[in-house]
Amino acid sequence: MSIPSQVNIVEVGPRDGLQNEAQILNTALKIDFINRLAATGLKTIEATSFVAANWIPQLADASEVFKAIDKPSGITFPVLVPNEQGLEKALAAGATTIAVFTTASETFSQKNTNCSVAESMARIKKIMPLAHQNNIAVRGYISCTLGCPYEGEIAYAKTANIAEQLYDLGCYQISLGDTIGVGTPLKAKRMIEAVLEKLSPGVVAGHFHDTYGQALANIYATLELGISTFDSSIAGLGGCPYATGAAGNVATEDLVYMLQGMQINTGIDLNALLAVSKFITDALGRNPISKVAQALNAPAL
Amino acid sequence: MSIPSQVNIVEVGPRDGLQNEAQILNTALKIDFINRLAATGLKTIEATSFVAANWIPQLADASEVFKAIDKPSGITFPVLVPNEQGLEKALAAGATTIAVFTTASETFSQKNTNCSVAESMARIKKIMPLAHQNNIAVRGYISCTLGCPYEGEIAYAKTANIAEQLYDLGCYQISLGDTIGVGTPLKAKRMIEAVLEKLSPGVVAGHFHDTYGQALANIYATLELGISTFDSSIAGLGGCPYATGAAGNVATEDLVYMLQGMQINTGIDLNALLAVSKFITDALGRNPISKVAQALNAPAL
Repeated sequence: MSIPSQVNIVEVGPRDGLQNEAQILNTALKIDFINRLAATGLKTIEATSFVAANWIPQLADASEVFKAIDKPSGITFPVLVPNEQGLEKALAAGATTIAVFTTASETFSQKNTNCSVAESMARIKKIMPLAHQNNIAVRGYISCTLGCPYEGEIAYAKTANIAEQLYDLGCYQISLGDTIGVGTPLKAKRMIEAVLEKLSPGVVAGHFHDTYGQALANIYATLELGISTFDSSIAGLGGCPYATGAAGNVATEDLVYMLQGMQINTGIDLNALLAVSKFITDALGRNPISKVAQALNAPAL
Repeated sequence: MSIPSQVNIVEVGPRDGLQNEAQILNTALKIDFINRLAATGLKTIEATSFVAANWIPQLADASEVFKAIDKPSGITFPVLVPNEQGLEKALAAGATTIAVFTTASETFSQKNTNCSVAESMARIKKIMPLAHQNNIAVRGYISCTLGCPYEGEIAYAKTANIAEQLYDLGCYQISLGDTIGVGTPLKAKRMIEAVLEKLSPGVVAGHFHDTYGQALANIYATLELGISTFDSSIAGLGGCPYATGAAGNVATEDLVYMLQGMQINTGIDLNALLAVSKFITDALGRNPISKVAQALNAPAL
């Protein structure tokens, strides 16, 4: 399989990023942030989450945010949805694409969402009819595919089976998450190879956290398998609150820099992205977790 | 070419790292630092530089440091040498391996060392007889192989020709430096492929700076070419003072983490390395530029 000539980036900063930041941004700022992201050339921006506000206070204003953002044609704004009530709220706010989630780790499922993996799959199955009646596209997340903070390594076959089930339930794309960032290139490759025994590369996405600095190497290794969709978070916003010392998702700037250097088309303007990175990290009062942003937004010597 | 089962890491923190730190450490601390590195399983540690002290005040105590460090059998301690006078000082201090340097960029050569590339090659040629008379092994560095802050991209053929010349002059290994960290995986691969038209993988090393977060991806890509020696710097010490916003060499901890995850043998104890990382960053009063050190040396949540 040759390296794809085009890659789709799913920007998850407004959701996976902000939900893991200690600081809660005000609604107007989140709307501004998403509108600015939509002007960079990104084609998919995960906008918010309809998980209950007592679980994720950072995104308690999901309906308000989603209703208010610009929705230019050609850009998709998935929102995270945990169950039917969440989907109803998302529908009321006008969502057309949702993301559902499960995990490859039984223990993580219990600790993170108080249910077994089978129960979380049943919950997703229950969401589907309402989603399909409303022409809602559904993206599926699987977390802990390269390791679990409680169980350690996870069998690749487990991830592959869950990925196939999600696809069979009607998910248009399955995002394979290295939630705690412990993956390294050959493991990432083998996990995705296991999934590719069941699904084609076009319906698979990589979602790598950069906790141990391995995310870009993992992405490069899986590009070699023909994977052409990757999730990333501007300025490396976010992280997993259940993992020690966790850095967040790979930074979108660093990913775009790598892909541009490889002549892979993303449609994204890196300079525009850097301006949004500065905007959101200024708002949060912290430095970007992106080496590209640190290097290119730094004052010249 | 399959991925090597064993990789040699050349730890350059005490030289390339410390020479680019603003702070000047005291001699006893440097000696302690190198002795601690030698206890981690590292087999090659670039100990210091015999470049004139007015150029690099950080390493003005090169002779004292080199004489005082433990020299366990089986560990090599190269020292950087710019010319015959430097070599004489290195010999007097008891060095048995030296490193010489040139660059693939004409402008960088002029700005950095006030001479042309040809003049720097002539200077290296002049060093060689004295080195060989004294059974000194010579390692060659080429900087700016993936880009120059003044010239931009550098033709791969230029690097390949210089690498071949260095080898023909008697260098046992040629380290190909991405000094300003602008390389991305396919460029790194193509540059090294150009060199491998002249030299075998066993005499080639990769030296990647992590300015744009690309170093591990570049290393993974070049491992696929059979390259099995990489330079790195503990805690990501150092950087290039001639480049804007420059992060230093790829962090040794992050490299070892990736290689261990790929079942590639390095002989290095990651926990011992993390302890030395903490030791040196505590001494410098700053955080490590290593995600692995940040994650694993962080207090548990």
